[in-house]
Amino acid sequence: MAMKKFINDPRNLVSELLEGFALVHSSKIRLAGSNLVVRAKPKPASKVAVMTLGGSGHEPALSGFVGEGMLDISVPGEIFAAPGPPRCLEALKMLDRKAGVLFIVLNHAGDVMTANLTMEMARKQGLNVMRIDTHEDISSGSSNAEDRRGLVGSVPVMKVAGAAAEAGRSLDDVAAIAQRLERNMATLAVALTPATHPSTGQAIFELADDEMEVGMGQHGEAGTGRSKIKTADETAELMLDPLLSFLKIKPGEEILVLLNGAGATTLMELFIVFRRVSQLCRSKGIKVVRAAADEFLTVQEMAGFQMCIARMDAELLRLWDAPCDTPYLVVR
Amino acid sequence: MAMKKFINDPRNLVSELLEGFALVHSSKIRLAGSNLVVRAKPKPASKVAVMTLGGSGHEPALSGFVGEGMLDISVPGEIFAAPGPPRCLEALKMLDRKAGVLFIVLNHAGDVMTANLTMEMARKQGLNVMRIDTHEDISSGSSNAEDRRGLVGSVPVMKVAGAAAEAGRSLDDVAAIAQRLERNMATLAVALTPATHPSTGQAIFELADDEMEVGMGQHGEAGTGRSKIKTADETAELMLDPLLSFLKIKPGEEILVLLNGAGATTLMELFIVFRRVSQLCRSKGIKVVRAAADEFLTVQEMAGFQMCIARMDAELLRLWDAPCDTPYLVVR
Repeated sequence: MAMKKFINDPRNLVSELLEGFALVHSSKIRLAGSNLVVRAKPKPASKVAVMTLGGSGHEPALSGFVGEGMLDISVPGEIFAAPGPPRCLEALKMLDRKAGVLFIVLNHAGDVMTANLTMEMARKQGLNVMRIDTHEDISSGSSNAEDRRGLVGSVPVMKVAGAAAEAGRSLDDVAAIAQRLERNMATLAVALTPATHPSTGQAIFELADDEMEVGMGQHGEAGTGRSKIKTADETAELMLDPLLSFLKIKPGEEILVLLNGAGATTLMELFIVFRRVSQLCRSKGIKVVRAAADEFLTVQEMAGFQMCIARMDAELLRLWDAPCDTPYLVVR
Repeated sequence: MAMKKFINDPRNLVSELLEGFALVHSSKIRLAGSNLVVRAKPKPASKVAVMTLGGSGHEPALSGFVGEGMLDISVPGEIFAAPGPPRCLEALKMLDRKAGVLFIVLNHAGDVMTANLTMEMARKQGLNVMRIDTHEDISSGSSNAEDRRGLVGSVPVMKVAGAAAEAGRSLDDVAAIAQRLERNMATLAVALTPATHPSTGQAIFELADDEMEVGMGQHGEAGTGRSKIKTADETAELMLDPLLSFLKIKPGEEILVLLNGAGATTLMELFIVFRRVSQLCRSKGIKVVRAAADEFLTVQEMAGFQMCIARMDAELLRLWDAPCDTPYLVVR
């Protein structure tokens, strides 16, 4: 059976997608060096820079968030694979500045290994870099941050860090803000259908015709909650409760709710799920002060979504609301 | 086999999705009257209003484009079905103003029938309304506009009409601008997999495991170009050539290229297709001056995309670039 994707030679996927991405969004981003995604108009060197790395195949993440008010450089890897340390070091050198660089890393084995080696090289070269790892997936049930994967919560972290950097805050401040949001967010993922790996044509995991799986991470790494398909309302409740518990959200507190479509799941479904999330929060006296429903970090054509909850404060809200102008997130 | 969608009772799909949509985007839109989607902050009555109608299940279209610089009201129907004339008349009365209202209608039988009856009632009541139908799908091969369906080209038409209205242009001007873009655009759709109708759980059409179909309209109404799956580059060429021919685009002319994902097709694929479109245009001396790749008008989880080409002029470019602030299209 032919792969039902519009691609050419699978070996050229990443170089071709990046070339097309840069052509579509030439007013906002461009490719530089060894396929690094950089802003079309660089940020002044007096301000802190924000950088990330991550596998391709998850578009618009992460390169779709390079631009004013968010990222300065994204280092895209091959499909579902981290880029190597040399390209990350190249990006850090490109960004090198007195004000410093914040390096945001989603907690996945390959990304973390790359980041460790990159930080070591950066230190040797005297570059001013601070690093924040995101690991807000609560599906492992572990209280140990290293055991929890980084999912779509990385996007709001990049948003608030980018806004703080744009506002001229110091590297210590930008890192502290990113860290504060990171420690106050939690995410769960649910899947209904697997995705096809676009390089191999193989399904990345299996799920029966009448099953769903909660807590399946980004690529189906460690599914723990297989069940028969539930309704949108049941699914919303099943996911919201552990997220609120993990964060110990109390009545009167203010939260951001972000629903991230995995690929094939429609906005229609995300809206129906959000309706129930909103009802449940209202009944618990929890204030949903900001919300988003969109595809931020996809896994090809997988059906499913991630629900991310974050405890907000006045400063985080101001930074979330601050203007930004990237290919796939624009705030006026 | 259970439907692999996050829904509740299929009979409540539209009311639930609209409720959730309004909750997620409460800063930009709200529901008014009989589930009309209106701006949270209405436009001054001194300016022309812009309105549309259309079936649900195609999110973010069309209600996702209500907001500053674009639509004033969207009248959503049931899944894949036009709303009735009474709700359209209700919307027109809500918008009633000396400056007048532009009513944008995608050419599909139900939408056009609704629009015809609505216009008749509006005339009887002395409302100042002009209507533009979009019918840029060239798959029928017909030179008769009535035979051509309205596809994603409606989105740029709403964008330029909305921008002209926001700038205080007269109803005649706004309608003329919308009409000019409409007459200078052409779209083709290609499908790889069908979608599941979320009310019935049935596939909306069939396509073999190794087949694709070019010219399948919005819901697979009239497929004319079934073939074995082609590469992204071959597909791009197969679609671009007839679009350029239909519009008689000559070397040196400036075009907008909009790639609209149908649902399951990834941004990765749209970028790879766009890369080839860009190469082909360059080789023909045609200037791609603006581009977009996103999900504007989906058909549930269908795999496929629409390619829309529009001949631009200085005024259309200025209006396309003008700021707007809607749930799913923001321009700074």
